[in-house]
Amino acid sequence: METSNGVFKGILDRFNGITVESEHEYNAADDFPEKLKRSLDYWQRKRNRAIWFKVNEKHSNWIPALTENGFQFHHARDGYLTLVCWLPENEYKNLPPCAHTMLGVGGLVVNKECKEILVVSDRYALIPNSWKLPGGFIEPKENLVESGIREVHEETGIETEYETMVSIRHSHGGLFDTSDLYFVMALKPKNFNIKRDEREISKAKWMPFEEYLNHPHVHETNRNFLKIYLDYQKCGLCFVLQKAKHQILKKEYCLYFMKSILEESGQGEVVKEDSKNCDK
Amino acid sequence: METSNGVFKGILDRFNGITVESEHEYNAADDFPEKLKRSLDYWQRKRNRAIWFKVNEKHSNWIPALTENGFQFHHARDGYLTLVCWLPENEYKNLPPCAHTMLGVGGLVVNKECKEILVVSDRYALIPNSWKLPGGFIEPKENLVESGIREVHEETGIETEYETMVSIRHSHGGLFDTSDLYFVMALKPKNFNIKRDEREISKAKWMPFEEYLNHPHVHETNRNFLKIYLDYQKCGLCFVLQKAKHQILKKEYCLYFMKSILEESGQGEVVKEDSKNCDK
Repeated sequence: METSNGVFKGILDRFNGITVESEHEYNAADDFPEKLKRSLDYWQRKRNRAIWFKVNEKHSNWIPALTENGFQFHHARDGYLTLVCWLPENEYKNLPPCAHTMLGVGGLVVNKECKEILVVSDRYALIPNSWKLPGGFIEPKENLVESGIREVHEETGIETEYETMVSIRHSHGGLFDTSDLYFVMALKPKNFNIKRDEREISKAKWMPFEEYLNHPHVHETNRNFLKIYLDYQKCGLCFVLQKAKHQILKKEYCLYFMKSILEESGQGEVVKEDSKNCDK
Repeated sequence: METSNGVFKGILDRFNGITVESEHEYNAADDFPEKLKRSLDYWQRKRNRAIWFKVNEKHSNWIPALTENGFQFHHARDGYLTLVCWLPENEYKNLPPCAHTMLGVGGLVVNKECKEILVVSDRYALIPNSWKLPGGFIEPKENLVESGIREVHEETGIETEYETMVSIRHSHGGLFDTSDLYFVMALKPKNFNIKRDEREISKAKWMPFEEYLNHPHVHETNRNFLKIYLDYQKCGLCFVLQKAKHQILKKEYCLYFMKSILEESGQGEVVKEDSKNCDK
């Protein structure tokens, strides 16, 4: 904690930066611009580097004075805006970027026995009446697989379990000018009766592979995901998930990597599939 | 374009939302809080749903009046803050999340002939003196592979080319309370003389596989990435990159998926490696 009389208190980080949180430091009685200038002089003398201000929505009247004093918006989320000011004059400004990529998931839900795939049509689709994979945005702090299973269930009522990651698509210039990472995963259905989310989904159904692979309203990229998945089945390829705990940070993480199933189950032997209920 | 006298002009989206940009609508002569209230009344009558304000840093004196009138911070980036207000009273607030995940890359740069791996020690490392893979944050609009190649080159002076994705690690509660997606990719070195970035990297060297796999200052997860990669080599597994263009959006994207190389090069035959220069 960096502190001195008449100067904002902040947390010192290992890069010699300071973070001030309005939640702790806001005082309506302060002359904010005056105290800010005094603090900046102090930090300059102390050779601090990046100065971060984390401003709660309730304290947004701090923001105009911060931008007038050289602070720039860094990121905003969960009711606060973080601004940053880089103090060293002769040192390269080395700051981490803000999060700039949206994460999405698509569920390739395949009924192997009936050779059918679960497809939906979005109510607010970019291309009206197109058939696509159920899916959506990954929520903050959500794991990829949990997100895929949740989205498929919300949109179609189908419960699933993870089988393999199929493909990752990365593109730029999306919503809010972010980039987009879209994770397509194969999910094994546990039930087959569709109960669609009427708010978001206008149509949902099981579509035969043959129809899906040739349908004019299925986008080529989406058709491709099924082809890739069917190839994996032939070659015995799987992108598995392993959960583990970081030994030092004591944080759980998910690790994804490839695995050859043929390897495990013996030379060239195709892995047996469970028999599935086809009554829908 | 939604417009009426004395009301902000904004862009109408397909969800019946409105986006107002300060860049186009800022006028120092306006009574901003008054015009904002008039606009909100107008949009309420027109049954608009989400109202987005994109506020440039230069116009940050708009922000206090926006938060006082029910707007919430959504995201900030590139010199602007976007706030949102959801107008429908009896409809579930269905807004996309902001970007909440930082993307990082790690380069597993392997000299196959000498059985050595490129390792670095960060100047500001969380665990001082630990050996890790060269890498860092992916910049906005950067592709994963380009980012890995750039980071390895910046930190060590080694030029590389993409070989395969090795693993993806996903964890939560990181920097700025974001989540973290870390893409580890195998990169083939084209030169071997290290020229380290003295600003960020305190040490860099080629370390023999045996030493790396047993070194007390190499974190277990990092050791694991090399083991996974060596397994891929044995099984002939590859996570390939294909660039393509979206037919409708005319946007380029990167597609990553698994491939079995043994399949292609004949049953069980190990793919031949190029002979490498081992003089470092």
